[in-house]
Amino acid sequence: MRHLLSSRDLDLDTAVRVLDVAEDMAEVATREVKKLPTLRGRTVVNLFFEDSTRTRISFEAAAKRLSADVINFSAKGSSVSKGESLKDTAQTLEAMGADAVVIRHSASGAPRVLADAGWIDAAVVNAGDGTHEHPTQALLDAFTIRKRLHGAASRGRDLDGVRVVIVGDILHSRVARSNAWLLTTLGAEVTFVAPPTLLPYGVRGWPVRVQHDLDAAIAEVPDAIMMLRIQAERMRAAYFPNAREYSRLWGLDDARLARLGADTMVLHPGPMNRGLEISAAAADSPRSTVREQVANGVSIRMAVLYLVLAGTETA
Amino acid sequence: MRHLLSSRDLDLDTAVRVLDVAEDMAEVATREVKKLPTLRGRTVVNLFFEDSTRTRISFEAAAKRLSADVINFSAKGSSVSKGESLKDTAQTLEAMGADAVVIRHSASGAPRVLADAGWIDAAVVNAGDGTHEHPTQALLDAFTIRKRLHGAASRGRDLDGVRVVIVGDILHSRVARSNAWLLTTLGAEVTFVAPPTLLPYGVRGWPVRVQHDLDAAIAEVPDAIMMLRIQAERMRAAYFPNAREYSRLWGLDDARLARLGADTMVLHPGPMNRGLEISAAAADSPRSTVREQVANGVSIRMAVLYLVLAGTETA
Amino acid sequence: MRHLLSSRDLDLDTAVRVLDVAEDMAEVATREVKKLPTLRGRTVVNLFFEDSTRTRISFEAAAKRLSADVINFSAKGSSVSKGESLKDTAQTLEAMGADAVVIRHSASGAPRVLADAGWIDAAVVNAGDGTHEHPTQALLDAFTIRKRLHGAASRGRDLDGVRVVIVGDILHSRVARSNAWLLTTLGAEVTFVAPPTLLPYGVRGWPVRVQHDLDAAIAEVPDAIMMLRIQAERMRAAYFPNAREYSRLWGLDDARLARLGADTMVLHPGPMNRGLEISAAAADSPRSTVREQVANGVSIRMAVLYLVLAGTETA
Repeated sequence: MRHLLSSRDLDLDTAVRVLDVAEDMAEVATREVKKLPTLRGRTVVNLFFEDSTRTRISFEAAAKRLSADVINFSAKGSSVSKGESLKDTAQTLEAMGADAVVIRHSASGAPRVLADAGWIDAAVVNAGDGTHEHPTQALLDAFTIRKRLHGAASRGRDLDGVRVVIVGDILHSRVARSNAWLLTTLGAEVTFVAPPTLLPYGVRGWPVRVQHDLDAAIAEVPDAIMMLRIQAERMRAAYFPNAREYSRLWGLDDARLARLGADTMVLHPGPMNRGLEISAAAADSPRSTVREQVANGVSIRMAVLYLVLAGTETA
Repeated sequence: MRHLLSSRDLDLDTAVRVLDVAEDMAEVATREVKKLPTLRGRTVVNLFFEDSTRTRISFEAAAKRLSADVINFSAKGSSVSKGESLKDTAQTLEAMGADAVVIRHSASGAPRVLADAGWIDAAVVNAGDGTHEHPTQALLDAFTIRKRLHGAASRGRDLDGVRVVIVGDILHSRVARSNAWLLTTLGAEVTFVAPPTLLPYGVRGWPVRVQHDLDAAIAEVPDAIMMLRIQAERMRAAYFPNAREYSRLWGLDDARLARLGADTMVLHPGPMNRGLEISAAAADSPRSTVREQVANGVSIRMAVLYLVLAGTETA
Repeated sequence: MRHLLSSRDLDLDTAVRVLDVAEDMAEVATREVKKLPTLRGRTVVNLFFEDSTRTRISFEAAAKRLSADVINFSAKGSSVSKGESLKDTAQTLEAMGADAVVIRHSASGAPRVLADAGWIDAAVVNAGDGTHEHPTQALLDAFTIRKRLHGAASRGRDLDGVRVVIVGDILHSRVARSNAWLLTTLGAEVTFVAPPTLLPYGVRGWPVRVQHDLDAAIAEVPDAIMMLRIQAERMRAAYFPNAREYSRLWGLDDARLARLGADTMVLHPGPMNRGLEISAAAADSPRSTVREQVANGVSIRMAVLYLVLAGTETA
């Protein structure tokens, strides 16, 4: 794997392979010394044009567990705010010895520009670009679903026939986009549930089913339901009446939690708005995979850094 | 030691043991290669909800000297400012592989909630919570006093009969609180000297003596006098008339410096307001332990991280 | 080398020696594992009172490649903004175990005060002070020129007779100052080209030639031309009419680029204002050394940290 820009780029074999390498990486976390020497002497730069402490430290933890050196480059207070172009910034980082650039950017497509423009040789990993994609999030979600379903027998499996419902602000969600592409590549059936105001134009052309009634979606007993985070700024922008109304119609409240199928798992990309898109009981129930998702995020990011930097063999 | 939340939790044996392990750690700093492999593969997260560069880098230096990986998580620009709860933040950090969480929080009691709520398995170290406690500061103060008094013969000793005067803003000081408990546990006699407006309600129930006259306290020739930092915001809040007045009544100025007993040492938790609570001459005199306190701070934090993460045997 | 405060302190032999050690360091970047164990157990503190992400991460990358521990201390949100003096900050850092302090400060002369006042034993490296000096920048510029001219045969050489033109805001440029001293020490002939408003008072006493006509300077076919960055705030301060006018008179535009001598190289300390002091074509042409300068910056900083911390023998 040369870069990781979009989950749309991943074919079935590659996607399963990333998940399998992540299984190897997850085992490292169970050891007495939780480190592999694999990337010693390599430098990973976290180039974050948007704040995202959680994603940044997940990549940082992943890189350090592989013994890479990590340099955090926040766009605040940097030359970028003095008007330096993405090109100059990237070339500067590479000239300083960056072997991989993990980029978070508010502009959709920025990671692909960085990878395709021929400015740098470093591997580029998309850590979220605008409303476009967040492929490592989709990979960790797929990994989490596969592991819940198959446990120790996960290796080599895809998600053929697994039914996943994604609920909430699809319009602004790079998580929903990346998951739609990756989960369907892995064979899953994806349903979006959202108010019409929070669905993107053109969603009917996506490989997903669209529903507006969360209760009907729950009644179909999906294998997994993923609750997206509602951003405070969306509420102010009048995409829906108010928090209580949103919660009543599109939230996983305690009543809906009680009606979920016996084995339906609940995913959330975090951070959660307890009481808004998800109730505290749902967040803390055994169905919730939130903590597994975070732990799996480190394993997936180790796998991705390993694959883009250390070649194609498994650890 | 499972966590370090409060110096009130430490019994005499445990307190002496932490000081003794810190003696071992101090020796590492004298070596050619100032590193121990003890915590290799362990991850220490500095979870700072308040800015405190000095305390943060002291813990960072301590963790790195033990070969741990360090991840700095500042609450600014993080999910915390997006409304994420302490619980979710802590669980996220643990899921990412944190073995110890060093927490600084403006709310008194936050570290204990984190340790006791059953949310995480990681060790919790209190790096200052509200006006409540700052136990590693008290430990480094006790270590500094013991080392000044007994030098190479410090190991195994307590502070029985040692007389310590703590001067200044007791009301808002977690340093004063943590020292009151720890020093008296170690056998020291502690006297608070402060204007009545800067003493906490209920202080008469503490194991300390209270005085209002600094000159009288100095005339009793204590072994150590600790000058607390005056925060600029206290001056604006009218707890005392003005800086000059404070300095005249409660500051360690040059006249008082000249009247100190021949062996009375002067402590200050830093950063100092030279000319306010302490004169430049006092700050720089051979009595001053300020630089030793900083160096000892790293040794104490190495000892604490070692004890909570690597078990109960000495290094 | 005890400290690196000013390129004016470097005699010819020392300057050539730093460049030669940097040649050794540059080879490390070509290895499979880009790390030397040389500074393991040493702590380098980046003490930055001004934001400068590029310089900070260049030093950070250099220190990590030598296996040192790096602690970043930004003056923002630190005790410094609470009024702590440079002295107390420096002593605190040293007490925490800093072996070298890399300091960036808005006050000209701050690094020398730090080194000469006897406050600390740590090595001090000037990473830019006010409008005074930026010696590692000058060293990397000299290194870049030498390497372009002599390639693998660079070792041991000075810049005798090499002609360098430095163009732009000399008045506010520590880069121009440091280069003027270092390049002339190395035997180069330096010409400043600038509008009269952007030349410092007293420049006629410097070991440089001053010209006001960029086209005339170009017609003399220098070996290297260095375009300084124009700061947006200078434009607002009316040092010159406007950006278009500046570019027309003092910028390396495409017309001037076409008139450069066949072997004239183009340097820029970065970040570039494309279209202002340098055209995009000039920035990206094979003459441009901008990326080499950044890569060489890490080698130079490795050499400097090595020389101040590990003695005088080559790696």
